[in-house]
Amino acid sequence: METLSVALGDRSYPIFIGANLFSHSNLYVPHIHGKQVFIVTNETIAPLYLNDLKQHLADFNVASVILPDGESYKNLTTLNEIFTALLNEKHNRTTTLIALGGGVVGDMTGFAAACYQRGVNFIQIPTTLLSMVDSSVGGKTGVNHEMGKNMIGAFYQPQAVVADISLLKTLPAREISAGLAEVIKYGLISDYDFFIWLECNIELLVQGDEDALSFAVLRSCKNKAEVVAQDEHEGGIRAILNFGHTFGHAIETAQGYGNWLHGEAVAAGMVMAADLSMRRGDISANDLDRIINLLVRAKLPVKAPQDMTAEKFIELMGVDKKVLDGRLRLVLLASLGQAIVTSDVDKALLLQTFAACR
Amino acid sequence: METLSVALGDRSYPIFIGANLFSHSNLYVPHIHGKQVFIVTNETIAPLYLNDLKQHLADFNVASVILPDGESYKNLTTLNEIFTALLNEKHNRTTTLIALGGGVVGDMTGFAAACYQRGVNFIQIPTTLLSMVDSSVGGKTGVNHEMGKNMIGAFYQPQAVVADISLLKTLPAREISAGLAEVIKYGLISDYDFFIWLECNIELLVQGDEDALSFAVLRSCKNKAEVVAQDEHEGGIRAILNFGHTFGHAIETAQGYGNWLHGEAVAAGMVMAADLSMRRGDISANDLDRIINLLVRAKLPVKAPQDMTAEKFIELMGVDKKVLDGRLRLVLLASLGQAIVTSDVDKALLLQTFAACR
Repeated sequence: METLSVALGDRSYPIFIGANLFSHSNLYVPHIHGKQVFIVTNETIAPLYLNDLKQHLADFNVASVILPDGESYKNLTTLNEIFTALLNEKHNRTTTLIALGGGVVGDMTGFAAACYQRGVNFIQIPTTLLSMVDSSVGGKTGVNHEMGKNMIGAFYQPQAVVADISLLKTLPAREISAGLAEVIKYGLISDYDFFIWLECNIELLVQGDEDALSFAVLRSCKNKAEVVAQDEHEGGIRAILNFGHTFGHAIETAQGYGNWLHGEAVAAGMVMAADLSMRRGDISANDLDRIINLLVRAKLPVKAPQDMTAEKFIELMGVDKKVLDGRLRLVLLASLGQAIVTSDVDKALLLQTFAACR
Repeated sequence: METLSVALGDRSYPIFIGANLFSHSNLYVPHIHGKQVFIVTNETIAPLYLNDLKQHLADFNVASVILPDGESYKNLTTLNEIFTALLNEKHNRTTTLIALGGGVVGDMTGFAAACYQRGVNFIQIPTTLLSMVDSSVGGKTGVNHEMGKNMIGAFYQPQAVVADISLLKTLPAREISAGLAEVIKYGLISDYDFFIWLECNIELLVQGDEDALSFAVLRSCKNKAEVVAQDEHEGGIRAILNFGHTFGHAIETAQGYGNWLHGEAVAAGMVMAADLSMRRGDISANDLDRIINLLVRAKLPVKAPQDMTAEKFIELMGVDKKVLDGRLRLVLLASLGQAIVTSDVDKALLLQTFAACR
C-alpha cells in the first residue's frame, strides 16, 4: 500500500492506494471522529459492497442511502434526498459521511458533507478508476444545474480517501478505459516520464493488472495533488487539469450527458487540444501520433462524433463571443508533458482542428 | 458613520453602520471586483429600494431576482431560482451577489454565493434590524429543510456589509421590536454596560431614533464579532449566541414558522432561560424582573403561548432523551451580562420554568 498526502495546510488528508484495502478498516476508522457514520452509495454499487462496508463499521451507528445511478441524478433533488435521509436518521454535526461509489456519488456526498449542518466530515471510497484519479484529489464537490454542469458546489476536502484497486475488478472495461483518459492526461500535461511509462504499460492497465493500476493511480494522484496544492481554488495553474475538457464538454453537451462517458469525451477532447497545439507548432505531428496511438490502445475514442460540425463546436463553446473579447481560454500543450493555458487562440487554426477531428 | 472590522484573518470584512449610507456607493463599489453584479431581494423590498440601488451601480452589468417574501420560501427550491437567474444572465465566477433584504434574503444569498460555481463574492445590505445585528456578522448562511431549520448551509463571509439605519424607516414596528430581542440578547450574554444603556434608551429604539439605533447596531455587531472571531465554526463559545434560542425554536416550531417572528420567540425564550438561571441561583429575582421589564418596554412577548405545555416543550426540545444522555446543552446566565453553556440541567427546575413561563 502507498499513502499519498495531499498538502493543503489544516485541510491536508491522506490517500491510501493499493489492492484489498477495503477490508482494512484500520485505514479509515481513525478518520471517523464521532459515533455516527452515513454511507452514500448507488443502486449499482450497493449490492456489491455496501454490506461488506457496514460489517467493517460494526462499532458505529451506521445508516445509508442508495441513490439512483447516473450523472442525470447529480442534482439538487437527489442531494436533498441525502439530507432527508440524514435527518430521518437524526445524524448530527459529528456524523461522518462515506462516499462509496464513482464520481457522481463522490461529488454529491462531498457537497452534502459541505452543506449538512454547515459542514460535517466525509471519507471517499472511490469505486471507479476515474474517481480514484480525478475526484479523490482537489475537493471539488457539487451537483449539476439543468443549465450547466457542476454549477452548484463547494471546495471541500475529505478526511481521507481509500483507493482500493481491487474494487476495480467489478468495473466494466469501458469504464476502465474512461478512467485511463484522465490517467493519460496527467502524462500529457505535467509528467512526460509517466507518459512513456504508459506507452510501455497501457495493455496491463486495460487488462486490470492491480500492480500497474496501483502505480498509475498513485502517479496520477501525485500529479494532481501537486497542482492542487499550488492553487486550491482554481485561480490559475489548476486550470491545466481541464486539458481536453473544454472540447470534451462540448461533445458531452451535444450528445447528452451519459451517452458518451466523461472520460471518452475527454479523450477525444485531448486529441483536439493536441491537434491545435500541433497546428500552433508547439508539438510535432509525431507527438500527436503518439498521443492518438496511446488513446487507441486504451480503447478510447480519438475523434469527435461525425455530427459535431465546426458550427456546433463554435456554438457550444461560445467561440465567437469568447474569441472576440479574449475570454476563450484553452489548455494546450507547450510540449509533450507540459500544458499551458492561453487565451491567444487563432480562430482559423481552431477551425482546422474542428474539421480534422471528427 | 462607524466602520467595524470583523476579524477573521483573510476572510475579514468591514461593516459600515450609520444613517443614509445606501446612496454612498463608494462604500460598496470598492468591494465589487468584477463587472457583473447580481442583486437578490424580495417582493416587499424591491418596490422600496431596488431601483435606487441599481442606479448607484450604473457602472456595472446589473441583474436581479425578486424572491417571494417569508421564511417559508427559505429552501432549496427558492435557492435554485437564484442559480437559474444567475445562469440565465450568464453570470460567471467573477460576479458579486448583493443581498438586499432581511435575514431570509441574506441567508439565501450568502449560501447561493457560497455554492454558485463553487463560490463567488457577496455583499450584504440588510434591511431589517434583526439582520443588521444578527446575520451581518458570522457568516452563517443557508436554507431550511422541511425537517429542520437551517439544516443546509455554509459558513461563508461577505466582502462587506452596509447597515444603513435609514432603511429601518420603512420597517414595521413589530419587526423593530423583533430585532431588539437580539439587541437585548447581547446585553444579557456579554455586555452588562450595554444592558444598562438599553434600560435607559429602549423607548428611543422602539421609536426608531437613528442615533440610538446606530449605536445599538454597532454595539451588537461588536459583541457578536468578538464571539465569532474566537470561534468561527461554533465549536465552543459561539454557542452563547444561541441564548434563548433553544426555547425559542420550540415555540417557533409549535406555532409554525412565521406566526411568531423569530425575535419574538427568542424574547420569550430568553425569559425562560433567565427564569431557569434564577431557579439555579445564578441570577436574582430582581435581575429577572429587569430583563422582563426591558423586553416588555421593547414591546416583546415575555411568555410562551398558553398552549405550550411542559409536555410540548419536552417533546420539541427532546428533553427526556437529551437529559438522559447528558446532551441537553442550554445557554444560561451566570450573571446579568454573562452567559454560560451548560449540560448540567436539573429536569425538576426545567419543569418549574416551563410551568412559570406561559
